[in-house]
Amino acid sequence: MVSYADIQAAQSRLAGHARHTPLLSSPFLDEIAGRKILVKPECLQHTGSFKFRGAWSAVSALPDAARQKGVIAFSSGNHAQGVALAAARHGVPSVIIMPANAPALKIANTRALGAEVVLYDRATEAREDIGDRLSSERELTLIKPYDEPLVIAGQGTTGLEIATDCDAKDAEVLVPCGGGGLSSGISVALAHDAPRMRVRPCEPEGFDDTTRSLASGKIEYNATPEGSICDAIVTPAPGEITFPIMQKNCGTGIVVTDDECLHAMALAFLRLKIIIEPGGAVALAAALFHGNQLTTDTVVCVASGGNVDAEMFNRALAQYGTPK
Amino acid sequence: MVSYADIQAAQSRLAGHARHTPLLSSPFLDEIAGRKILVKPECLQHTGSFKFRGAWSAVSALPDAARQKGVIAFSSGNHAQGVALAAARHGVPSVIIMPANAPALKIANTRALGAEVVLYDRATEAREDIGDRLSSERELTLIKPYDEPLVIAGQGTTGLEIATDCDAKDAEVLVPCGGGGLSSGISVALAHDAPRMRVRPCEPEGFDDTTRSLASGKIEYNATPEGSICDAIVTPAPGEITFPIMQKNCGTGIVVTDDECLHAMALAFLRLKIIIEPGGAVALAAALFHGNQLTTDTVVCVASGGNVDAEMFNRALAQYGTPK
Repeated sequence: MVSYADIQAAQSRLAGHARHTPLLSSPFLDEIAGRKILVKPECLQHTGSFKFRGAWSAVSALPDAARQKGVIAFSSGNHAQGVALAAARHGVPSVIIMPANAPALKIANTRALGAEVVLYDRATEAREDIGDRLSSERELTLIKPYDEPLVIAGQGTTGLEIATDCDAKDAEVLVPCGGGGLSSGISVALAHDAPRMRVRPCEPEGFDDTTRSLASGKIEYNATPEGSICDAIVTPAPGEITFPIMQKNCGTGIVVTDDECLHAMALAFLRLKIIIEPGGAVALAAALFHGNQLTTDTVVCVASGGNVDAEMFNRALAQYGTPK
Repeated sequence: MVSYADIQAAQSRLAGHARHTPLLSSPFLDEIAGRKILVKPECLQHTGSFKFRGAWSAVSALPDAARQKGVIAFSSGNHAQGVALAAARHGVPSVIIMPANAPALKIANTRALGAEVVLYDRATEAREDIGDRLSSERELTLIKPYDEPLVIAGQGTTGLEIATDCDAKDAEVLVPCGGGGLSSGISVALAHDAPRMRVRPCEPEGFDDTTRSLASGKIEYNATPEGSICDAIVTPAPGEITFPIMQKNCGTGIVVTDDECLHAMALAFLRLKIIIEPGGAVALAAALFHGNQLTTDTVVCVASGGNVDAEMFNRALAQYGTPK
């Protein structure tokens, strides 16, 4: 499990390195939602998502001898960039294993942030085999994306900031949920600092593994591995470590459509002036369009990331970027 | 003139009402610029631009009896929204005089923020006449957009935050410049708090009235009143009050093209996850593309506003939103 003290320790390690993001708001969003909406823009975090917090937490906590040898991660997305930058700023090597057919931009970004990118063929190679071989050859430490206590503790620092910055102490906290690292981490922080604030994990339709798992009381899996525009938060199931934490602390999940995410992205463009990626917009979409499932006058929505390409962003603006 | 004490007093009045915006950065932008770039995202300020600071400063400083009667402003843009929200949050009426052919969205937004919008016909009516009549009938106080000490003092609070948050004490501070309220206000704050930080006003090509005025030593005018995509910072000339302050404190101006603004907007989308409007992007464009005119290893760029419509934003992304 992950304790409040673990999150405090992570916060000490992150101080001066991760950004303390603000809480944003707009009377226009409040009017749509019928309540006060506060948005925590983790898209403004280094590398454009909250993943930098967990990556920094894990890299900074390694014993110096292990850290000097370097770290390794599997990711084609936000975790890759978070680990790459955290390692680079510690002056240690990182290896990121990415599918050869990952978007060229993501590969280029990860390299530009200082990582050695190792590509593999999804059809013929198992990334775990490559990872095992590189790890043992070079004694690299694997940084898992969510089912790792140090990573969860890093993501939990988001919750410390929410508890400090949100004046309303009675508020639901809507969190985009993939493997559950961010939701579980925030929930531990709030349970201690603001016990009347409760995490509500938010997911895209068809990939509501956590919502169903919380309802059934056991880990449930998604039917398919892909097919949502919310790629950043699509995982097969909640984690072995994150799920019991969410069971203990979180309210029921909320499920939104891809279309509602695009609408929320366009409203964030118009009213908050921030870029949110589809997966990062599920919480704001839940607050704006599923208010009947909410219970508090003030709701905090974490906007977990902003790494969206121009084409997808234009799609959101074309549909919803001009107010009626 | 405007003193440092005036800015401190404005900061006290703004506390808890205006946002203290962070400083953002990206290694990708540093690489393009060849130096450290820090971006002050005033697009994240209430109403999407720094104008809220000056408006709040002016409205909050009025004697209570005068404030209760209400305020009036001429504006079709960011100042209108700033004054409307500042008045609404003080619980007092505001009248904004806008051209009848202003974009419907801006009119709707200004109304939604609580203002009474009075439309006039640019061809047949003088807005000053309408303003004079309404002001005298209702005893409204006029809030000028820049040539007003209380407004300049409010904008100057941006400079107090930069001096506090920027670790490099030897840095040029690039500021989008229209009438000069923001540039002059910041310059007074920095002259006291960080005397080795110097404001460089930035302007779009063809509308470089301040750059030319600083060079010639007297107020120079633009040849035409419109024609730049940087509508938010196009004014006929620097102000009677702002110009002498800029003459005393600021370095030479920097002029950028509209195309460079679009490029900077797209890079802010990709690397910072913020929305900047064309006029708000001139300072970042200057840092990225006119580095030969800069002298310090660290440069602060104020991103002064984000009120851009989807069509213009898509134009920036279509041209520059996909990295090479």
